Amino acid sequence: MFEIKSLNQQYKTTIEDIINNKTKPLGALGLLESCASQLALLQSQKLSELASTIEINHPTMLVFAGDHGIAQHPISIAPSAVTRQMLLNFIAGGAAINCFCRTNDIAFKVIDTGIIESLTSEDIGDGTTFIEHRIAAGTRDFSQQAAMSKAQVNQGLTLGAKVAEEVIEQGCNLLMLGEMGIGNTSSASALLAALTKQNIDDCVGQGTGIDSEQLIVKKRLIQTALNRVTTEQPLDLLAEFGGFEIVQMIGAILAAAQAGIAVLIDGFIVTCAALYAVHMYPEVREYLLFSHQSDEKAHLFMLNELKAQPLLSLGLRLGEGTGAALALPLLRAAASFYNDMASFESAGVTV
Amino acid sequence: MFEIKSLNQQYKTTIEDIINNKTKPLGALGLLESCASQLALLQSQKLSELASTIEINHPTMLVFAGDHGIAQHPISIAPSAVTRQMLLNFIAGGAAINCFCRTNDIAFKVIDTGIIESLTSEDIGDGTTFIEHRIAAGTRDFSQQAAMSKAQVNQGLTLGAKVAEEVIEQGCNLLMLGEMGIGNTSSASALLAALTKQNIDDCVGQGTGIDSEQLIVKKRLIQTALNRVTTEQPLDLLAEFGGFEIVQMIGAILAAAQAGIAVLIDGFIVTCAALYAVHMYPEVREYLLFSHQSDEKAHLFMLNELKAQPLLSLGLRLGEGTGAALALPLLRAAASFYNDMASFESAGVTV
Repeated sequence: MFEIKSLNQQYKTTIEDIINNKTKPLGALGLLESCASQLALLQSQKLSELASTIEINHPTMLVFAGDHGIAQHPISIAPSAVTRQMLLNFIAGGAAINCFCRTNDIAFKVIDTGIIESLTSEDIGDGTTFIEHRIAAGTRDFSQQAAMSKAQVNQGLTLGAKVAEEVIEQGCNLLMLGEMGIGNTSSASALLAALTKQNIDDCVGQGTGIDSEQLIVKKRLIQTALNRVTTEQPLDLLAEFGGFEIVQMIGAILAAAQAGIAVLIDGFIVTCAALYAVHMYPEVREYLLFSHQSDEKAHLFMLNELKAQPLLSLGLRLGEGTGAALALPLLRAAASFYNDMASFESAGVTV
Repeated sequence: MFEIKSLNQQYKTTIEDIINNKTKPLGALGLLESCASQLALLQSQKLSELASTIEINHPTMLVFAGDHGIAQHPISIAPSAVTRQMLLNFIAGGAAINCFCRTNDIAFKVIDTGIIESLTSEDIGDGTTFIEHRIAAGTRDFSQQAAMSKAQVNQGLTLGAKVAEEVIEQGCNLLMLGEMGIGNTSSASALLAALTKQNIDDCVGQGTGIDSEQLIVKKRLIQTALNRVTTEQPLDLLAEFGGFEIVQMIGAILAAAQAGIAVLIDGFIVTCAALYAVHMYPEVREYLLFSHQSDEKAHLFMLNELKAQPLLSLGLRLGEGTGAALALPLLRAAASFYNDMASFESAGVTV
């Protein structure tokens, strides 16, 4: 369905030489150096020649929102109604992600992938930040049956890809993803446990802040669901435990990698989408940058599965793409040193 | 010499209520919430009323450069001449710190606190980013004698305070410090070991990247110096082991706290200045924010001594204030959520 190229390594040595000749001790900019190296390699591939500068153009945050049947159980601090309320908050510009996108000059769009009660045209306002890509009015309760059909999974991949392709068409060369969906840490935990066969205790955490009793219920429901399923295929697992926002994010990631642009991954839910995208197309991994390690217990395990070293670790547990939005200035800084910092020769420094 | 007020806690509860009523789970913005709380408290004190918004005005990076007598030994990857070369690089705008200040909209100034060979008027150019505050042509070799006189320590505190007062006068309400000085991790390690009486192995690291043989020499020289000294007074220890850039940074920190503004602390050397400032005036701690944990081994120990939780940990070991410059967007983000994020009530979210 997608064609994703492994990165051509032919410019790797030249890029590393450029970085190593900047006026600083070897490796002294730590993780920023690996970000610069990855972005330069990516952009060289797209240009079919050495990228002598790294360009970050129209970075765009796509927040995918969806509801989850599993949320009828007491596994979240808030009811499903809050997904819709937060969508309105996103459109009004009042959420944390809006603040961070404004502060860091990031374009912002929110996608209804299937919340329970759709927005009215009055809710949507001028519609410039809103996209309606509804698959259904929330997923089914995955503790009892498959969350969605295989056809819905494929529909989600296509819809997600479409949003990404549109913003890339408009000039975005760095995609950022976020999500909103009451119950979606349960979905992501089930997806993680099913794919990795890791013990459930290592895959489930307290989400945005449930108590220990709710955590017991959450683990029990996820275990029940896992017991039902024998498949190992990512697409089947997505149908069993997925969320509409998660499958659309996978589609967006795959489309971005297919277009040869980088994706900055957010927290637990977005990383789950990344994990599935990489299982489906291993080459995708080369297009991913990881913004932060969240407070959700299993996020570190998930990042390790992806051999990912995130830029930030601020104790965030909000979702919405907030970690990715906060990390963007570090990528801009990586680009700035690659593009503008003097070399030993040009500065007359004799180390 | 300085008058530094402990922060008035009267607005603390109101500020926490504002943060807790934002449309997010309690505490879900992690470290950004403590930054917002500290900045709002600080600015409330300055206003003598509740700061309903956090303002970050003209954030300014002051990079203090100085040379060290200890650098005549093989304890650094580069010779003292590089301090001067890098000063020229700073003035020309070609160093990492220049790139990060431009990218993150930070004003930049560099101060010669006492490099070996002073700059010529031709080197300085239009002089808008350069300040000459020379104490001497480098410190003395502290492995053999006191690095400077007590009078020079006091002169350094006064000169550092003067620079800070000038930029505050011009509208800066967030001060950021950086440094350049071949040999200055040796100075900072000796200052740390002498003040905390911690074993030298826990206080000395590989700086910008010396090898294990150089590390042995570095530890031996520092131990020799420590053996000579019996004083416990911060000002005496600064005379024994200090650098001109370190004492001027202490002066700048104290002046900023005296003026009631926040200081964003950088890596190992700047944190050493902060440690001494706090030992001299414990109230200073409330004015400090910590940008990053560097790759220098003893930095974590130093941060723990200050009960500081830094924002970033990117494996940096460059100095120059780079960690602080990279962390500034996180403080802007903290201000933006405090200032602009909707409350549950205003957004109609029912959690």
